[in-house]
Amino acid sequence: MTDGGGPVRIIPLGGLGEIGKNMTVVESDDGLVLIDAGLAFPRDEMLGVDLVLPDFAYLRRNADRIRAVILTHGHEDHVGALPYVVREVGVPQVWATRLTLGLIKSKLDEHGLIRATELRQIEPERGPVRIGPFEAEFVRVTHSIPDAVAVVLRTAEGTILHTGDLKIDHTPIDGVRTDLAKLGRVGGEGVALMLGDSTNAERPGFTPSEAVVAKELLRILLDAPGRVIVTSFASHIHRLQEVVDAAIESERKVCVVGRSMVKNLNIARNLGYATVPDGLLIKPAELSESPAEDTVILCTGSQGEPLSALTRIAYGDHPTVSIIRGDTVVLSAKPVPGNELAVHDTMNELWRAGARVLHQEIAPVHVSGHGSADELKTVLALVRPDYFIPVHGEIRHLVAHRELAEAMGVRADHVFVGENGACFELRGGVVRRVENVEAGVTFVDGLGIGDVRDVVLRDRRQLSEDGVLIVVCQLSQGLDGAVPPEVIARGFAPEGEGAETLLAEVRERAVGVLEALEVRETKLVQSHLHDELAELIHRRSGKRPLILPVVVEL
Amino acid sequence: MTDGGGPVRIIPLGGLGEIGKNMTVVESDDGLVLIDAGLAFPRDEMLGVDLVLPDFAYLRRNADRIRAVILTHGHEDHVGALPYVVREVGVPQVWATRLTLGLIKSKLDEHGLIRATELRQIEPERGPVRIGPFEAEFVRVTHSIPDAVAVVLRTAEGTILHTGDLKIDHTPIDGVRTDLAKLGRVGGEGVALMLGDSTNAERPGFTPSEAVVAKELLRILLDAPGRVIVTSFASHIHRLQEVVDAAIESERKVCVVGRSMVKNLNIARNLGYATVPDGLLIKPAELSESPAEDTVILCTGSQGEPLSALTRIAYGDHPTVSIIRGDTVVLSAKPVPGNELAVHDTMNELWRAGARVLHQEIAPVHVSGHGSADELKTVLALVRPDYFIPVHGEIRHLVAHRELAEAMGVRADHVFVGENGACFELRGGVVRRVENVEAGVTFVDGLGIGDVRDVVLRDRRQLSEDGVLIVVCQLSQGLDGAVPPEVIARGFAPEGEGAETLLAEVRERAVGVLEALEVRETKLVQSHLHDELAELIHRRSGKRPLILPVVVEL
Repeated sequence: MTDGGGPVRIIPLGGLGEIGKNMTVVESDDGLVLIDAGLAFPRDEMLGVDLVLPDFAYLRRNADRIRAVILTHGHEDHVGALPYVVREVGVPQVWATRLTLGLIKSKLDEHGLIRATELRQIEPERGPVRIGPFEAEFVRVTHSIPDAVAVVLRTAEGTILHTGDLKIDHTPIDGVRTDLAKLGRVGGEGVALMLGDSTNAERPGFTPSEAVVAKELLRILLDAPGRVIVTSFASHIHRLQEVVDAAIESERKVCVVGRSMVKNLNIARNLGYATVPDGLLIKPAELSESPAEDTVILCTGSQGEPLSALTRIAYGDHPTVSIIRGDTVVLSAKPVPGNELAVHDTMNELWRAGARVLHQEIAPVHVSGHGSADELKTVLALVRPDYFIPVHGEIRHLVAHRELAEAMGVRADHVFVGENGACFELRGGVVRRVENVEAGVTFVDGLGIGDVRDVVLRDRRQLSEDGVLIVVCQLSQGLDGAVPPEVIARGFAPEGEGAETLLAEVRERAVGVLEALEVRETKLVQSHLHDELAELIHRRSGKRPLILPVVVEL
Repeated sequence: MTDGGGPVRIIPLGGLGEIGKNMTVVESDDGLVLIDAGLAFPRDEMLGVDLVLPDFAYLRRNADRIRAVILTHGHEDHVGALPYVVREVGVPQVWATRLTLGLIKSKLDEHGLIRATELRQIEPERGPVRIGPFEAEFVRVTHSIPDAVAVVLRTAEGTILHTGDLKIDHTPIDGVRTDLAKLGRVGGEGVALMLGDSTNAERPGFTPSEAVVAKELLRILLDAPGRVIVTSFASHIHRLQEVVDAAIESERKVCVVGRSMVKNLNIARNLGYATVPDGLLIKPAELSESPAEDTVILCTGSQGEPLSALTRIAYGDHPTVSIIRGDTVVLSAKPVPGNELAVHDTMNELWRAGARVLHQEIAPVHVSGHGSADELKTVLALVRPDYFIPVHGEIRHLVAHRELAEAMGVRADHVFVGENGACFELRGGVVRRVENVEAGVTFVDGLGIGDVRDVVLRDRRQLSEDGVLIVVCQLSQGLDGAVPPEVIARGFAPEGEGAETLLAEVRERAVGVLEALEVRETKLVQSHLHDELAELIHRRSGKRPLILPVVVEL
């Protein structure tokens, strides 16, 4: 129970009307708690933006009242903004389960923030704990990453349950199921307000179990005549474990390629969330020592990201791995909307290089980590909330979830489809919508891949301070008379004599980047241009304009 | 049989390693025949390009030998380049079935080319006809447009069969099935080389029948509490017929919205390919006179195209139709890869406006027009070609089709996975690959929507003549100090004093376009900028640079 600090306000600052950057404020007069602090990846038209975070304006204004961030699980769209919140706003405590803590420790460490906040471990099997002004309890849920939880906050005004992301998988890889009994117990005690994951609310039926994928991966590793290359999300520890298990069963060695994949598997192993026998792993340099049919490569790049391991392998641009005729490549992931063409391009390059490619449209090599309509109905049946706010989804998903809630008996006027910044007040068990708070987006513009300490945060208002630099390049495959890049500076213009010199230098560097590139793939070119020009300008002028590389293919 | 004009050469100029712009040359020394003349739609990164055509270089060099174009069916990726081929290269005859002729007549007419070529009707039930140097016969096939055919060309060197696009649907809407018996007969007579549609070669099993969609559409129209809005491809006459039939059954009036939908349904009706009772259709202005639950709107926009009817309806930007709470919108199509985000955006806007949206991921409201693996195997089993070239698909589809052919007994070294411009020589029943011919792309840059007579064709070489004009605009939602558009001219630069004036005028017009727009959706802004600036520049300077509108959202 709370100390009775007046009405409780629930404010989703991200994740409503969109997929990603999930973040919800729950506060009373006695303090503010955040559930999740996620980020989103930019759409193609957001040229020059590396990451998208929720707007921190509301948090900044209430910085002195922030008590803690509670993380439901370790996915980027739930934890990716944490270092920025810690740095920009300040957070006394971060609560998360053991694996999630392992993942964010590494993240905070990279940002030099490991001592900037107190890390507290969530142990769902123990009783309630006090977090800020609320009594918190946790319910284990199954998702596409281990150690995920739903959050129960007991307040003087009523109980709030936030599902986090979940599915109901009766045969999860680690045997840890969504704790339906506990959801039922909490529901039985009375839940005033539930916030529920809507990602798959449109899909009828049940999402298949992860066991389906494990079985298929084993079949593939047993049957493939040569080497197998599997790509998935680096955080999908279960999926990585499935590949490891199938490798053992099929007597293959495993080579892990791609920075985030190596890092996450290490963290999971060290914490006991992944079991990898000694001697199973080999280094890329050792690949040539084993027959192809005795190896499997586990790598990043399931989204066709320009600089990822698989994309570079596909285009013959990877330093240690290249496709051998007879390779089987498994894309064990679904393209995030907007990434389809990049993924198709990668697949075609792989085929061209002599590989066979399996993907989720033609083989059961991926299942979602989010529950479908009948699972969400099951959760609603157990929790029986008085009020309901669908979260985590585009409008179509939120509306579909609203319909499920109504079908399960929640009163139509007790279901709220809001948008980011919508503010809901819980008082004496009654929820009503009050005036919105400020919400929106903050862009992160990283200065070079991996250089995580050196990032720039900017929201729309800040932009004019740093300015914009647009570089227009023409990619003309082996044409005579290719025109040199054009540079437009906006708001950034370094003053005085130095200006022209710097812009000339930028142009020159852009020419250098274009000449040095062997692979003329638009996004790859954009990435390289962005990073090199950002570095040059910062070194010369101390400024960090938003760099927009426009590549015209002619 | 041919007159014996030496070896026959088969050259796919489009459709290999890509979806779209299908075009294949079949020629002997006595003349050249084209099978299909299709176009593709530009990818997002091809800024300022309206359409993509095959490179005409090879056709230009052989213009005097061209005898005819044979069209397998009326889809844009098979007939869209026809007006450009007729205009740029010259084509004595165009052969097509009755509906396909109807559709291209309208197209040629718009381009002022109706008398520039002789239109000949394909009648598959009649015997062989002579087309150029070859004896041609046709086999009816089922596809997502009526009146589609496969093409059999008998030459002195052996018989060639091109499947066109096909599926095996035993319950098609018009009752016209793929003529398996005839495929078997032709196969029995001996087919030296088959070229086969590979679009769905990766998909196991059979593509469901169109009857599945008809049933679901009827169910939706019977059950929907209010108005129903159905969008699909305007050329999918069967699908339109299904909506019409379901409307009759559910006692709803039909309102057709969107230029291409109105046009195609009219053509199909006039030629007897669509049956629409008198009195069923109402005009948009009459919508308000009928109760919502008694109407259905059939409209364009299934791909989220910025200026299409459905997109404008979704964004509240359509002159005559707006969403009423309780509307059910059915997206009876699958997003073409690359269009996913635009389609999702449209769906979310529709939900936001109060509609319920059904789409192919959550309801059986769409099936493909292309046969899956087992259908393609059935065709291979009937035709039993000696040699096989998979066509119509990205590399992954072609390779998958190769595997099907091998599984069905075609010798591995008799299957060729080529690329556009690959040249295959058929001589005495033996096919071998010879040197490639020039192939690539030609861009079409239309001067304003609907202004089809006034288009510019350019390939990479021509570009320098007209130049490029890049307009960088910042879309800053209601921000102070929004910066004016920047204009970069490349190669186009009008000489002398007029240059600065014109560029200033372009900037001014760009400001005007931005100010006038109510809907600040990136692609919509790009379309408007492109069209207005192209018109202005052409009027002032007589030049037609490639216009690249770069819209930066900040």
